[in-house]
Amino acid sequence: MLSDDEKKKLVHRLSRVNGQVDAVRRMVDEDAYCVDILMQISAATGALNRVGELVLEQHLKRCVRDAMENGDSADRDTKLEEIMSIFRKYGK
Amino acid sequence: MLSDDEKKKLVHRLSRVNGQVDAVRRMVDEDAYCVDILMQISAATGALNRVGELVLEQHLKRCVRDAMENGDSADRDTKLEEIMSIFRKYGK
Amino acid sequence: MLSDDEKKKLVHRLSRVNGQVDAVRRMVDEDAYCVDILMQISAATGALNRVGELVLEQHLKRCVRDAMENGDSADRDTKLEEIMSIFRKYGK
Amino acid sequence: MLSDDEKKKLVHRLSRVNGQVDAVRRMVDEDAYCVDILMQISAATGALNRVGELVLEQHLKRCVRDAMENGDSADRDTKLEEIMSIFRKYGK
Repeated sequence: MLSDDEKKKLVHRLSRVNGQVDAVRRMVDEDAYCVDILMQISAATGALNRVGELVLEQHLKRCVRDAMENGDSADRDTKLEEIMSIFRKYGK
Repeated sequence: MLSDDEKKKLVHRLSRVNGQVDAVRRMVDEDAYCVDILMQISAATGALNRVGELVLEQHLKRCVRDAMENGDSADRDTKLEEIMSIFRKYGK
Repeated sequence: MLSDDEKKKLVHRLSRVNGQVDAVRRMVDEDAYCVDILMQISAATGALNRVGELVLEQHLKRCVRDAMENGDSADRDTKLEEIMSIFRKYGK
Repeated sequence: MLSDDEKKKLVHRLSRVNGQVDAVRRMVDEDAYCVDILMQISAATGALNRVGELVLEQHLKRCVRDAMENGDSADRDTKLEEIMSIFRKYGK
């Protein structure tokens, strides 16, 4: 669970990502130079990955921690399995 | 330069990325489970990277090829330097 | 802490990575085609990342789990902070 | 084709990568802390990726450039296709 402050911050960042994706679309539409388009795409992807990092950080600090402290053995297994699947999705 | 067909295809894909980012925002707002948010972020990033791949492919097939065939030595150096900088941005 | 079985498996995989890096070196030395060298490098990097994945999995299943169950609050914070730093190193 | 100087530089770097992989293996064998092992794996992967970057740079500056200047249309297509496949292997 995210706090209201974190939610606000994340929603704000995601609005900016949408703005960056809009910018890519406009660049495509207006025949911008491909290399500039690629750099803008990379900026949007980077911003999106930073959102992911913030969500993961909160997830560890709250959900995982809580499961570790208060959950039973099965809860803990689930949480650790989830961290592995996140790592597989996000890792290189 | 992208053809009209490619532009249309890319604009369509970018609209879908916007939809995916909106979905992430909604999930944050509605207290979705962090792991599900992370999976949705990963889907959006993946879609954005595929747009980048398509742009790069067109860039190579058109701009780079054209510079190689019709440009002078300096044009070619610029294009090859650009490919390296794209690789540095996008590579692991 | 890794079990003897896991250690043996990892050491075996790491020997294979060494073999792959040797192969890259030989290819460089014997003027192999650059693209083939790059593909071999990518195979070695992939193998190394899979070793990292196995180590992380064991780390979560043992050290993290143990800290969560038996450690105090500071131990847990350290473990979660470490997972974030691993994610930052390994994530895209 | 790589020059003798570049080959020497790359072979030297690859020897160092093998040293880093040896270090990982030793750490596994001597029960080093998993997080430290993961950081050492990340260092080796990073060093290997930098070798790949150097090979790609030489490949572009020599093979690709040469094909663009002296090859025929089919040679150019092959080179551009290869760059895309390298990008797919190495990109995120």
